[in-house]
Amino acid sequence: MYQAKAYSAASETSPLAQDSIPRRATTDRDVQIDILFCGVCHSDLHQARNEWKSVMPTVYPCVPGHEIIGRVTAVGSAVTKYKAGDLVGVGCMVDAGHDCQHHHGHELFSPDVALTYNSPDRHGTAPVTYGGYSESIVVDEHFVLKIPENLDPAGAAPLLCAGITTYSPLRRAKVGPGSKVGIIGLGGLGHMGVKLAHAMGAHVTVFTRSKSKTDDALQLGADAVVLSTDPDAMGSLAGTFDFILDCVSAEHDLNEYIALLAVNGNLTLVGAPEKPLPIAAFGLIFGNKSVSGSAIGGIKETQEMLDFCGEHNLTADVEVISIQQINDAYERMLKSDVKYRFSIDMASLKQT
Amino acid sequence: MYQAKAYSAASETSPLAQDSIPRRATTDRDVQIDILFCGVCHSDLHQARNEWKSVMPTVYPCVPGHEIIGRVTAVGSAVTKYKAGDLVGVGCMVDAGHDCQHHHGHELFSPDVALTYNSPDRHGTAPVTYGGYSESIVVDEHFVLKIPENLDPAGAAPLLCAGITTYSPLRRAKVGPGSKVGIIGLGGLGHMGVKLAHAMGAHVTVFTRSKSKTDDALQLGADAVVLSTDPDAMGSLAGTFDFILDCVSAEHDLNEYIALLAVNGNLTLVGAPEKPLPIAAFGLIFGNKSVSGSAIGGIKETQEMLDFCGEHNLTADVEVISIQQINDAYERMLKSDVKYRFSIDMASLKQT
Repeated sequence: MYQAKAYSAASETSPLAQDSIPRRATTDRDVQIDILFCGVCHSDLHQARNEWKSVMPTVYPCVPGHEIIGRVTAVGSAVTKYKAGDLVGVGCMVDAGHDCQHHHGHELFSPDVALTYNSPDRHGTAPVTYGGYSESIVVDEHFVLKIPENLDPAGAAPLLCAGITTYSPLRRAKVGPGSKVGIIGLGGLGHMGVKLAHAMGAHVTVFTRSKSKTDDALQLGADAVVLSTDPDAMGSLAGTFDFILDCVSAEHDLNEYIALLAVNGNLTLVGAPEKPLPIAAFGLIFGNKSVSGSAIGGIKETQEMLDFCGEHNLTADVEVISIQQINDAYERMLKSDVKYRFSIDMASLKQT
Repeated sequence: MYQAKAYSAASETSPLAQDSIPRRATTDRDVQIDILFCGVCHSDLHQARNEWKSVMPTVYPCVPGHEIIGRVTAVGSAVTKYKAGDLVGVGCMVDAGHDCQHHHGHELFSPDVALTYNSPDRHGTAPVTYGGYSESIVVDEHFVLKIPENLDPAGAAPLLCAGITTYSPLRRAKVGPGSKVGIIGLGGLGHMGVKLAHAMGAHVTVFTRSKSKTDDALQLGADAVVLSTDPDAMGSLAGTFDFILDCVSAEHDLNEYIALLAVNGNLTLVGAPEKPLPIAAFGLIFGNKSVSGSAIGGIKETQEMLDFCGEHNLTADVEVISIQQINDAYERMLKSDVKYRFSIDMASLKQT
């Protein structure tokens, strides 16, 4: 066991501040990683502020961060996939119990899954797992991803959560050349959805409430941008989309997007509005349409996504910040004042 | 053109009464059918009483009926699949325009589809199409189905709507041996869902609010019956169903059934509650679950369903009535006082 520098929240009302946390000594199956960059996900803020009290109450201190890029510094004796010096990533999960790592090919749905932060720490190093706002981390080999060396590490960090969260449903919907894909919302998730769907060869339409996002959407790879507040523009697209990826967490009317789906079309939610969404049965029945939810992706699929991004030299658009700017970054994230993800340069922590 | 006896509604408040309607002379592509039985679907009542005013206003006189079984009496010169004497069926559709008969393999989604009643009659025989509450009908060969001779014709009639409506989503969900299937509601649709899912080899659980339906459900082929009003019974089944077919048109909470779906599970609506159904996004996201709608099925799939029913000697449970009993039957249907479908013996009309 050793101590590592980290940024943690001491309570739900405390700003994040520098801390020292225990990391376990590398076991046979472990990979020790020197963290270079960590993306900032909205979940980090929710967890730090205990906003998911009812389902996942926060244990303090809380060290967020599950979009981790780093270099391997040491590996356990049973580790076969990695060696010191490799560029690697860690996403939302760090453990899933021995028998359950392949639960439906999706470790998140194992009853024993350990998330990267705020999950009971099976190794007993600390009461809960501590995330990537830290100079280093020790993770079971199964949950470590290989990062293509051609990818910018700062921009690659958000692939570990925002990337796989949008890639997985696009793949499940068999998006490819000839597909007509809609992306609702152009934030951290949405901008990855646009880039990935475009790279898969689809015709991509972005739905947004802000006309100001038009140029950005086109630059990210969208073929068309539609103001969702314009009933004529929306109406003219009825029945034309094979797949719509809904990246919006704010309340909104799904039925007007279901109307845009073609026969057999699917809308998948990756943003999770708090209140139940009223869905008209007739809208689904007439056209054999469906509404799905999708949660990140399994480890195998995450590696596939990273390899795909390597081939297409595709990363998130990030604003690099120092760890000392994290509290400001949270406030800006709340105002959607970021294009499109913050990525923390962890050198800023090591230099302290 | 010739006149045929039929039962029609003269206005939204009129009971059905005997009438005489025009049927077209058999064209090259047509099959003329002597109707033996016609099932009674809840849609018949909705349409006769103009309860779908806003989407499909009723044109009077209205002759309902889209679960038709009969014998071919004449065929046009270009008809290749049928000859006089064949046992045939007609379901919810009778035309779809020449280029659109294979719209996604599902003629209902052709913009030119003509339903069996109350759709503009492209042949100009009458303002709208007239359905199966009649002694005969003339239908384009493409929309005529072959009925296996081993099936009881009275019980086979409901296969043309209730049968295909439940068969199609079960097939889409790839239900088979090893599948855990739930059926919500044990009415006309639900009882077909139980029989079909059982014949496909699935483990079938019926969800009902009426304890009195337990024995019937087991007799129809269910392996288990769960009272949906029992929170303990419902809770113990969380995460265990591959597929749930929701046959209920009354308002009900979908979220408690979504909780019962396994990872990647799907719930398909074939009943259509009037008001939008509130669906919690988290319930879909955590488990990559989905909610779909499904509308009858294409003609090719309907034939596949009929062949499947022929192989398994599977028909609906029906109460045979005379056409003179139709108004009483509607009142009983409103009280769910039928096991599980009325089937009109059309000899009762011919004898008048």
